[in-house]
Amino acid sequence: MSFLDYKSVKKLAKLSQKPIDLSKKGVLTPKRLENMQVESIGMKLLYGTERVTDEVLKALFELADEAGALKKMKEMQSGAVINKIQGFESENRSVLHTAMRDFFENRNSSKEAQKASLLAFKEFEKLKKFLQKIERKKITDIIQIGIGGSDLGPRALYIALERYRRAGRKAHFISNVDPDDTTAVLNQVDLSKTLIVVVSKSGSTLETKTNEAFVRERFKKMGLNPKNHVIAVTGKGSPMDDPSKYLASFYIWDYIGGRYSATSMVGGVVLAFALGIENYREVLKGASEMDKAALLPMKKNLPLRSALLGIWNRNFLGLPTVAIIPYSQALLRFPAHLQQCDMESNGKRIDKNGKKVAFDTGPIIWGEPGTNGQHSFYQLIHQGTTTVPLEFIGFKESQYHNDVSVEKTTSQQKLLSNLFAQSLALAIGQKEKNPNKFFPGNRPNRILLTKHLDPLTMGKILSFYENKVAFQGFIWGINSFDQEGVQLGKLLANKILELFKSKKSSFPLGQAYLKILKQI
Amino acid sequence: MSFLDYKSVKKLAKLSQKPIDLSKKGVLTPKRLENMQVESIGMKLLYGTERVTDEVLKALFELADEAGALKKMKEMQSGAVINKIQGFESENRSVLHTAMRDFFENRNSSKEAQKASLLAFKEFEKLKKFLQKIERKKITDIIQIGIGGSDLGPRALYIALERYRRAGRKAHFISNVDPDDTTAVLNQVDLSKTLIVVVSKSGSTLETKTNEAFVRERFKKMGLNPKNHVIAVTGKGSPMDDPSKYLASFYIWDYIGGRYSATSMVGGVVLAFALGIENYREVLKGASEMDKAALLPMKKNLPLRSALLGIWNRNFLGLPTVAIIPYSQALLRFPAHLQQCDMESNGKRIDKNGKKVAFDTGPIIWGEPGTNGQHSFYQLIHQGTTTVPLEFIGFKESQYHNDVSVEKTTSQQKLLSNLFAQSLALAIGQKEKNPNKFFPGNRPNRILLTKHLDPLTMGKILSFYENKVAFQGFIWGINSFDQEGVQLGKLLANKILELFKSKKSSFPLGQAYLKILKQI
Repeated sequence: MSFLDYKSVKKLAKLSQKPIDLSKKGVLTPKRLENMQVESIGMKLLYGTERVTDEVLKALFELADEAGALKKMKEMQSGAVINKIQGFESENRSVLHTAMRDFFENRNSSKEAQKASLLAFKEFEKLKKFLQKIERKKITDIIQIGIGGSDLGPRALYIALERYRRAGRKAHFISNVDPDDTTAVLNQVDLSKTLIVVVSKSGSTLETKTNEAFVRERFKKMGLNPKNHVIAVTGKGSPMDDPSKYLASFYIWDYIGGRYSATSMVGGVVLAFALGIENYREVLKGASEMDKAALLPMKKNLPLRSALLGIWNRNFLGLPTVAIIPYSQALLRFPAHLQQCDMESNGKRIDKNGKKVAFDTGPIIWGEPGTNGQHSFYQLIHQGTTTVPLEFIGFKESQYHNDVSVEKTTSQQKLLSNLFAQSLALAIGQKEKNPNKFFPGNRPNRILLTKHLDPLTMGKILSFYENKVAFQGFIWGINSFDQEGVQLGKLLANKILELFKSKKSSFPLGQAYLKILKQI
Repeated sequence: MSFLDYKSVKKLAKLSQKPIDLSKKGVLTPKRLENMQVESIGMKLLYGTERVTDEVLKALFELADEAGALKKMKEMQSGAVINKIQGFESENRSVLHTAMRDFFENRNSSKEAQKASLLAFKEFEKLKKFLQKIERKKITDIIQIGIGGSDLGPRALYIALERYRRAGRKAHFISNVDPDDTTAVLNQVDLSKTLIVVVSKSGSTLETKTNEAFVRERFKKMGLNPKNHVIAVTGKGSPMDDPSKYLASFYIWDYIGGRYSATSMVGGVVLAFALGIENYREVLKGASEMDKAALLPMKKNLPLRSALLGIWNRNFLGLPTVAIIPYSQALLRFPAHLQQCDMESNGKRIDKNGKKVAFDTGPIIWGEPGTNGQHSFYQLIHQGTTTVPLEFIGFKESQYHNDVSVEKTTSQQKLLSNLFAQSLALAIGQKEKNPNKFFPGNRPNRILLTKHLDPLTMGKILSFYENKVAFQGFIWGINSFDQEGVQLGKLLANKILELFKSKKSSFPLGQAYLKILKQI
């Protein structure tokens, strides 16, 4: 059955004709704020400032039920082959990133998941030994070369957890094929004390292979043997699976999508080196805890609740974007990771049977930390003509516990006051006579609130979003795990590259662009 | 006259009922690509991949004409009082950021602009002398403390131009009231060799004053006198205008909006210290050149053309967002600057007479560098259900001219091939039988193309966007220069802060949030 055929969808469509107005007097009460929350494994989702009623929530639960969301989550985590388009040539794989961290309590009992988990644990132990072995060497820096999922998740996590860095160790990232990216990073390190992790599942990603060649050449110029510095993270049997060229090789598998790979060796090598293996283990533990929480009954299920609220905003209130606003500077690059995780997963136009959908799928994801955003784009958020639903992330405590009291409050208190104030201001608005000071309000938002941004919590947050995205895909009936939409660009890029080599190519549009380029 | 009343708007609305389909055979020809470009001061805007025809362009020019866009630009640059809402309490100022850099050719002849320009030049000369004076001291680092416009523009420009950094000099930025932001930056520098620039026009920005106190305390703890390190950039007469507390003071004026302040002392001190005064001067020169180019007749006017294409996409094709995608890693944080510049300027719900608008104003701006984005959110861009117009920025050459040839092409060639390929792929699409490999195409985009990202060009690009945003505001008839929409959040944040101090406050919603916070 397709999304539009569900009874609950019809019910929700009806309810959405007159959604609750949060800016109306008496609607947004303390009682509403306290009632509209769901808590799980130490995290709270506060959604009293979303435009939902108990009736809407009930219908959303019915939707989850009709779509079999929980059953599908269980199937995914158990290794069912869900990455496919029925009846057409497509990927045909299971989706087992959850198995990459299923080393703790309540392990999945399916054969496929256990097999994947065992393989992953072997890599984890291999990594542990490798890191112990290099402990004697004076390695200070590690550079990850990878793009997309081999970059965004690991980089966001590293920046988020720099406070937990091992003394004297630093990580860097090269992603772009832009030669300036590579040059700028190489200028920052002493290569003789640096490890390079090259990450490509296929072993043939253009940007990554190019940058690997770039860096290997630099090693040679300096009289160093790259073989003593360069580590591979790749799929078994890929062109990069050649231990004769690498100091060490770690494996990933086809059931790990790039955007879900931060807790595989894709994130593992760089994070365990820079933060220490114990901190990396905590990330895995937190992610696994949230995977289990994603299997809880509907009323206790944090990522499912968030997924349903997102579907309400997207399909029934018709809102095209979502802003992710962490009130934590450490999460600066987390929205960039979520851009891939969400938009690459759910930016789809066909359902899993290959039928064009007649409803909206994944929204456009963007965001910057608060309070910074308040001094930037919040003008539009409060008074613009397009409503932007916000997903705030907040922490009770700071990471460093190093704070200052100015005018009798700490910075952390100021940060939290602003977070709560924005959530309320967006919902309530302000009905002023001066049209310039008039705030319509009624702008939906929710807060993911927890105590402290440590490695365990980072793992939970990562998995919270991974599972939220998966739930939305299940409910929409799309395949959230392929990415055919990136192929056409590659194809045309190769045609234009041929023109640069001035081989013959019958691609007149590319020729036109090159002609224009020459005139500059 | 209001936007919706223009004859051209009615004409455009009619044309938009059947806009050109770029994916149709024979539409996207080399000739179209070569014809649909406008060039000015060494920069090209290529827009053959926008959904426009000559007829649409003609109507867009008529719109610019009816709205008096060029006249208004001239008035703005000449110091007319345009920052106001007619008939209501509002700011009541001129808008003279262009005067901050009008030190070169073709200077504006109005009294107001010349006065502003003279004052700005005095500050520039003062800065030059100050930097000469500290040349003897061994200063290695500079930290800018500021938020919003006092952070985003200068930071984006610094990152873009790091390649031109003076040897042994580095800049850092503290913006967020999050205490972890401050701690993390302070951990990176030797304060005894560090200058601090505190930037706040009002001299009372909460985040900035808090972080200044934070940093001053750290100086004292280290036995250093902050007076020997801390520089003020503020408005005359502000609480920060107190030379007894600062090593030096530089001034800005109320006719410089924060988001337009990168070429005033707000960006000047940090950029001139880190890049050298000559490089900073080049930024000013580039910006000024583009300001003059924004006064050119319609057919030669680069920022106006881009503004009109944006209005076509926003108001007539109904597209809610714009992605800015520089194919240059150095421009990593430039989209974050444009988020403020555009969304704070044009995210408005009333026109300049205080009347609620009945059309869409500023879109949601977001973006990341290419090729990175290709491996992240381009899935949605190509195959999602919401069309995202793209504004690419490309350069013929790399910054470092340090490149490698892999498989017979350089990285820069790969970068450019991808840029052109994406522009074409989005427009043409691919009509495949396998629905998973079907690309609808017809997705509008344009390319700002130039030779090289140096300080002069950076100035041009900065001003290109500033003037584009201003043109759109002129055409919509809104005030692009105030930001009343940020006030309500501040008000409520103060109410909640009072609760943290446990003073009495009758704000039950804040109390509810604090109660929830305590339970974590």
